Amino acid sequence: MNDSITNDFVRQLDRQHVFHSWSAQGNLSPLVIAGGRGCKMWDYDGKEYLDFSSQLVNTNIGHQHPKVVAAIQAQAEQLATVAPAHANLARSEAAKRILARAPSGFSKVFFTNAGADANENAIRMARSMTGRDKILSAYRSYHGSTGSAIAATGDPRRIPNEFARGHTHFFNPYLYRTEFWASNEAEECERALQHLKRVIECEGPQSIAAILLESIPGTAGMLIPPKGYMEGVRKLADQYGILLILDEVMAGFGRTGRWFAFEHFNIKPDLIVFAKGVNSGYVPTGGVVVSDPICRHFDDHMFFGGLTYSGHPLAMASIVATLDAMQEEGVVENADHVGNGVLASGLRKLADKHAVVGETRGVGVFHALELVSDRESRAPLPPAEMAKIKAALIDKGLLPFVVENRIHVVPPCIVSEAEVEQGLSILDEVLGVYR
Amino acid sequence: MNDSITNDFVRQLDRQHVFHSWSAQGNLSPLVIAGGRGCKMWDYDGKEYLDFSSQLVNTNIGHQHPKVVAAIQAQAEQLATVAPAHANLARSEAAKRILARAPSGFSKVFFTNAGADANENAIRMARSMTGRDKILSAYRSYHGSTGSAIAATGDPRRIPNEFARGHTHFFNPYLYRTEFWASNEAEECERALQHLKRVIECEGPQSIAAILLESIPGTAGMLIPPKGYMEGVRKLADQYGILLILDEVMAGFGRTGRWFAFEHFNIKPDLIVFAKGVNSGYVPTGGVVVSDPICRHFDDHMFFGGLTYSGHPLAMASIVATLDAMQEEGVVENADHVGNGVLASGLRKLADKHAVVGETRGVGVFHALELVSDRESRAPLPPAEMAKIKAALIDKGLLPFVVENRIHVVPPCIVSEAEVEQGLSILDEVLGVYR
Repeated sequence: MNDSITNDFVRQLDRQHVFHSWSAQGNLSPLVIAGGRGCKMWDYDGKEYLDFSSQLVNTNIGHQHPKVVAAIQAQAEQLATVAPAHANLARSEAAKRILARAPSGFSKVFFTNAGADANENAIRMARSMTGRDKILSAYRSYHGSTGSAIAATGDPRRIPNEFARGHTHFFNPYLYRTEFWASNEAEECERALQHLKRVIECEGPQSIAAILLESIPGTAGMLIPPKGYMEGVRKLADQYGILLILDEVMAGFGRTGRWFAFEHFNIKPDLIVFAKGVNSGYVPTGGVVVSDPICRHFDDHMFFGGLTYSGHPLAMASIVATLDAMQEEGVVENADHVGNGVLASGLRKLADKHAVVGETRGVGVFHALELVSDRESRAPLPPAEMAKIKAALIDKGLLPFVVENRIHVVPPCIVSEAEVEQGLSILDEVLGVYR
Repeated sequence: MNDSITNDFVRQLDRQHVFHSWSAQGNLSPLVIAGGRGCKMWDYDGKEYLDFSSQLVNTNIGHQHPKVVAAIQAQAEQLATVAPAHANLARSEAAKRILARAPSGFSKVFFTNAGADANENAIRMARSMTGRDKILSAYRSYHGSTGSAIAATGDPRRIPNEFARGHTHFFNPYLYRTEFWASNEAEECERALQHLKRVIECEGPQSIAAILLESIPGTAGMLIPPKGYMEGVRKLADQYGILLILDEVMAGFGRTGRWFAFEHFNIKPDLIVFAKGVNSGYVPTGGVVVSDPICRHFDDHMFFGGLTYSGHPLAMASIVATLDAMQEEGVVENADHVGNGVLASGLRKLADKHAVVGETRGVGVFHALELVSDRESRAPLPPAEMAKIKAALIDKGLLPFVVENRIHVVPPCIVSEAEVEQGLSILDEVLGVYR
């Protein structure tokens, strides 16, 4: 690295040439990142950040894991790219390792470039399999930004992008801001299922190909479904011959202290959608894990989807190395132990201490602090206040993941107890302003 | 590499675990590829193939270019991934190099994972910029397989995937199978423009956000627009306040002997869509080059699109190295020289010699042989015959790119005259059956 490179130079070069996601471009001042390792990142001044964002909740194995880096380098040396129609060893090995972590009854993997096109293709498979049209998904959800994925998305980013037909949305359970006038978890669950049943009946079950759900909605704020909800959804789907697609893009591959987040419930989906954690995003990739009956359907039915970089060797090699390293090093167990231990208890302490915290919830290294200007009314802390909090956290060396009125506390799955304590102490200090 | 690995082992592992693009999965027998270098690939038996497909017309710089491999390895060592909101040097450097090759009047690059989502985002920008809804594109086109990209696509793969609204298709010029009863290029051009004008008028110009066209339709068979057509399209777009999006995913970055295929015409688009050749697909990436007025619009208008791996450092480093190496080594000039020299003249000789060739057309290393069972009626050679030809070419060590009744002759841009002669001689031998 050239010593003469400065943060200002890199920021200016960015502002001159780079068009950014989800933004007006005029007044952006992006944080400059030069490198990273484990849970740390740094800029060109050598200022260090503790990454409590995992970037976009993807670097489950942390930054620059040496085994994954080495695997990418070795595959680059051997063969960087190959057409998807050809057979390539790295691709089969990656598929095999993903299938080994899926429940029984899944037999093939279709690889894509990321989570959005993985959802696109799961939707496509469900429509072809059922001969039905509609996809039901939750208002509090994010499934990606391509044509069908953004229409399946429930959050308001859908609205300016709603050009795909066949998408219907329903309210998913979220007791803290209940849509069902519920006063406890059991009531929220029962009413949310009754609501979903009524939407299915009113849309016409025979028109519905699939219910698409994040196992635990992530961007919407770690909305852990109440006990019994997911089992109830599976039952409704079965009752009406509807397929169940679970989007594990953010929650999968260790994030919740399990390989898949749906392992917290007593169900199996028909299609599993993944990206992010499968290789910590070291190379763009994603995909769909396909259950046996759907595989059998496509043995003699044409699958009308595809892409140039499906099963890209570099991405595949990084999946193999990531999953092997996660297994060898107990990364999922660490997310469970540290996440449900010091992290969860520390966040509860912050919630007790700071009135600005309306609720804390989560599992593994997948937590949210919901900030409110008033605990009684639960009014979300306004955007200007959230921006100040974000700036203060960054200033103190914590990279946070801020969405609406929430701080998503999502460090890499390898985070140590000491790093959690360090992050909690910065959060404590910044939230102290609102004590 | 383990010496005990066999083609059969790799093929079986693939059939057991991998779900393939655009196929029924039951009877696939994918070709096994172990490695590659330059224009050559090989399997585990050491059988060599001359790659006249560039895989999916993406390895413009050939396989395993040492400078690109080294750049990927170095970036992997430094920082594999970073969130798109942060500023990262590799991303700005990649954008700068792409903009340096674009015409004046373009100032920013939005990066995506591939061509499909690049088209998605160009469409999104056009809709936001114009406040209009409809996208006009050609029947003979392919723009990708995500929700809006596949609806913009004209070819029949659109039909089972038509879930996005706002897409209208028109006939693009293709004299050999004219839709306009034309008998020469000038007539085809004039009538195709008249047809497009009538579609615009009948759809309502005030409803049309953009015309989306491949500069030279690729998957549809190198349909080089007749002289004056693209200029006519630009004029119609301007007349009606419609934006012009040119999809350069397949034709861009050297393929036609120019950096961009639209340089063959006297026009500039409003948005340029790219992928494939920009880094030869060594790491999945793509994007949109955005013209100044559209950049200015988004300075104070929110852009409602984004993705986790936008401007992924590994991909960005590979773009920088690819474009630098292409420049230093005269790769675009080679595609021009060899493609429009020995390749074009050799294909014309094959067309003269073999009655099964109905037409040969193309530019640079972007050619098609259109095969017919009867030159008079121009009846396409049936699929079973095409499958036999494909198998024979592969058997003789040529990797072809076969689409419908066409052999697309699309070697890497680095192809040598000797390699072209070798490929032509295999084509000559196989087509000899039909002499």
